[in-house]
Amino acid sequence: MINGKNTVVFALGGNAILQTNDRGTLKEQYRNLKETVQHIMPFLMREDVNVVVTHGNGPQVGNALLRSEISKDTIPPHTLDVCGAETQGSIGYMITQTIQEEFYRINIPRVVVSVVTRTLVNTDDPAFQNPTKYIGPFYSEVEAKKLAEERGWIVKEDSGRGFRRVVPSPMPQEIIEYKAIYDLINHGHLVVSTGGGGIPVVKRDQRLEGIEAVIDKDLASAVLATELKARQFIILTGVSRVSINFGKPDEIKLTSLTLEEAQKHLSEGQFPPGSMGPKIASAIKYLEATDGDVLITSSEALFPALKGEDGTWISRG
Amino acid sequence: MINGKNTVVFALGGNAILQTNDRGTLKEQYRNLKETVQHIMPFLMREDVNVVVTHGNGPQVGNALLRSEISKDTIPPHTLDVCGAETQGSIGYMITQTIQEEFYRINIPRVVVSVVTRTLVNTDDPAFQNPTKYIGPFYSEVEAKKLAEERGWIVKEDSGRGFRRVVPSPMPQEIIEYKAIYDLINHGHLVVSTGGGGIPVVKRDQRLEGIEAVIDKDLASAVLATELKARQFIILTGVSRVSINFGKPDEIKLTSLTLEEAQKHLSEGQFPPGSMGPKIASAIKYLEATDGDVLITSSEALFPALKGEDGTWISRG
Repeated sequence: MINGKNTVVFALGGNAILQTNDRGTLKEQYRNLKETVQHIMPFLMREDVNVVVTHGNGPQVGNALLRSEISKDTIPPHTLDVCGAETQGSIGYMITQTIQEEFYRINIPRVVVSVVTRTLVNTDDPAFQNPTKYIGPFYSEVEAKKLAEERGWIVKEDSGRGFRRVVPSPMPQEIIEYKAIYDLINHGHLVVSTGGGGIPVVKRDQRLEGIEAVIDKDLASAVLATELKARQFIILTGVSRVSINFGKPDEIKLTSLTLEEAQKHLSEGQFPPGSMGPKIASAIKYLEATDGDVLITSSEALFPALKGEDGTWISRG
Repeated sequence: MINGKNTVVFALGGNAILQTNDRGTLKEQYRNLKETVQHIMPFLMREDVNVVVTHGNGPQVGNALLRSEISKDTIPPHTLDVCGAETQGSIGYMITQTIQEEFYRINIPRVVVSVVTRTLVNTDDPAFQNPTKYIGPFYSEVEAKKLAEERGWIVKEDSGRGFRRVVPSPMPQEIIEYKAIYDLINHGHLVVSTGGGGIPVVKRDQRLEGIEAVIDKDLASAVLATELKARQFIILTGVSRVSINFGKPDEIKLTSLTLEEAQKHLSEGQFPPGSMGPKIASAIKYLEATDGDVLITSSEALFPALKGEDGTWISRG
């Protein structure tokens, strides 16, 4: 049914919104977004391409959770899924406004629309047996154990700095809203979606139940790109090219990779779990299911990369 | 272009999500939503009708702002427009989940999708000269004046209980995303939109700028219903019928009203500004621009009302 030959899914990197030394103000977020959007605008404005923009929410959902916990004696606290939904609203709005501003400037009538997005995960995902993602504030052991009892949390010690809550990071299976997103892009709208990897939901007793978990945004974007049969899946990050032997004297910046090479390097531990690893895994996930291409690069290098002069291209080969 | 003869815009009342004695927990919000949705489900599931659900965000945006202020020494605070966007994410998610659950139960494949929605207001709206809507926490006079200086707020004394920030409540002019909403409903999706009246934006220097203001959700819903050329605009509230001489011995519950009668009663001050007033004004706004009908009733009375046995119907007459 879906013919997505002109569709591109664009996963913005965390640094597109908040950078390492930022405090987390709205001003910083708008400034970073504007810089990123200006880099990629010549691409976003192409009339022959349907565009979906996805984004992370790491620092923002951490802040939402922290606000909720700091205020919990005054206002009933929110669960993690609801905090994630909040950040989809706020970040979605900021991205929408930023792209729309550039469109207005050059008289492009395209509407930018942000969709609250849920991501289905399996109830039997092994991640639920072993939650590994630290979220929210640090607590003393006593406080942490009290909260674990009161709120049903799982808490663990985090690198000797205190106790924190941990949640699972299950594999995304389906973007619940993908048909709606498909219909929107095929009417020429630019869609912002799957923020923070989507709000995690499971199917239980024939209904969707929101759960407290985090989903990798690149993996979720790969699922969306596959469902939309996107022609290209572009992952923006802090570096212009993927490296092997990263940080070593024999580091090699890769100009292209086949699916098989990507699988080999990933299984050999070439890509760190917290950063390039999930991006390569996302590329593999998408390439195994489609005929498209993946580009991993920075926003600054996007244009040279599209001309084949920068970035790392990955294809089935 | 737009033929909305089968479209219904459904404005949920504040009590559909939080009720007077609720503390504001997520559990309460889901419980209230479930009750409302079950009342209106036989309507939402009709295949011959395109449905858009809109909702308020009064208590929730107040809480978002309060969380942001309580935490402001730890996390940079959010502006009111971003708080509004957050609540569109969280409430949109909760409504979506609640309706979707009912659809799953009876095997309806319709996707429920929540759209982050911006509402255009005019920069020269007289409301900007005289902000009247109290928002956020109470402060002492000293604190309030300090905040006014630091943050550019306007503060006023609120009914002798302390000082609060005031923001303008301008008239909604356009729902920025209405074409996207139109496309979604015409593909059979049920859309949740225009939460809290939409995030207010103004056109300035050829761009959309988010502003700190509040928009009446019924008035914004009337604008959306007009743009979608909706056949019906249903406003759910706490009472099953609109009254004149409300609370007096000669109170009359109205079964129907013409546009002209509604205008007359409104101008005679029959409807209180904070409650029924904006609902009647919204009905008038919609009826002046379309050929549709308005129904004002409670969720419990929706079905008798649709059969003409309850509710207040308003039409051009």
